[in-house]
Amino acid sequence: MKTIEVPVEALKHSFRQHASGVCVITLIDEAGNPVGFTATSVTSLGATPPLVSFNVASGSSTWPSLCKATWVAIHTLGESNQDLAVKMASDHTKRFLDDDWTFGPKGLPIFPEATTVLIAAIREIHAVENNAVVIVDALEGLSGVEQRPLLYFQRNYLIG
Amino acid sequence: MKTIEVPVEALKHSFRQHASGVCVITLIDEAGNPVGFTATSVTSLGATPPLVSFNVASGSSTWPSLCKATWVAIHTLGESNQDLAVKMASDHTKRFLDDDWTFGPKGLPIFPEATTVLIAAIREIHAVENNAVVIVDALEGLSGVEQRPLLYFQRNYLIG
Repeated sequence: MKTIEVPVEALKHSFRQHASGVCVITLIDEAGNPVGFTATSVTSLGATPPLVSFNVASGSSTWPSLCKATWVAIHTLGESNQDLAVKMASDHTKRFLDDDWTFGPKGLPIFPEATTVLIAAIREIHAVENNAVVIVDALEGLSGVEQRPLLYFQRNYLIG
Repeated sequence: MKTIEVPVEALKHSFRQHASGVCVITLIDEAGNPVGFTATSVTSLGATPPLVSFNVASGSSTWPSLCKATWVAIHTLGESNQDLAVKMASDHTKRFLDDDWTFGPKGLPIFPEATTVLIAAIREIHAVENNAVVIVDALEGLSGVEQRPLLYFQRNYLIG
């Protein structure tokens, strides 16, 4: 195997070869407006109790709202949700302009075309450098249309 | 969408629809023996500085060694590594009996057939209930054979 000496290059090289599932996380900001973002870091943190973790940059547009929020909606995405994944990672002022969402449990913004939605309560936000690990307790779920999963791999979305 | 009221069922339903990349994490225990496990929770935690997080159950066989270790090797897996993923999630006494690994940087056990290996230093272990989020600093990398990524989806391994 060939050595990559620069740490950041080593990190980028590894994660280019690592696929991840794609989620959209939504919440309500202090003014009552919907906010959210595309996340490729959502992972289970055990089932007893049912916990989930995801990572977020503290420079992201959603970060200030996340720090003050109580609940989040974690949407798992499938093959029909690629446009949603792109939109929720683009200009944050345009993420809720379409009529593809509605208010759901806990007043959270819900995209019903997702494969599933997990309604969760923020348990803790653990800051690490310019990022944070967010740990949430699962409260209830919504079941959508079963379909092939959306993946993020080599900086592109693809169907699993 | 149909509501799932039981939190643990909601969690399981969501993660059955969520694909993840597959890694093998290795380290050396206090006696100098190789230990490791298959992980589907490896994710980047930012590039400046280059950080990675992964989750581990505190009841797992590798947990005591992880708590005392300094370094880990995070292997990203591809289509040719499915048997390795299965082996490293099965009987922990049989994970290093084959001749498919060698000692590498920092004396870590390395499986050279992986797509990449990230050598990292454990920065912190953040306990949450019966699980923990492990945060590591990337130090250097090894580049292997580029191939299609191995995925974990609906409780099975598949090729991305």
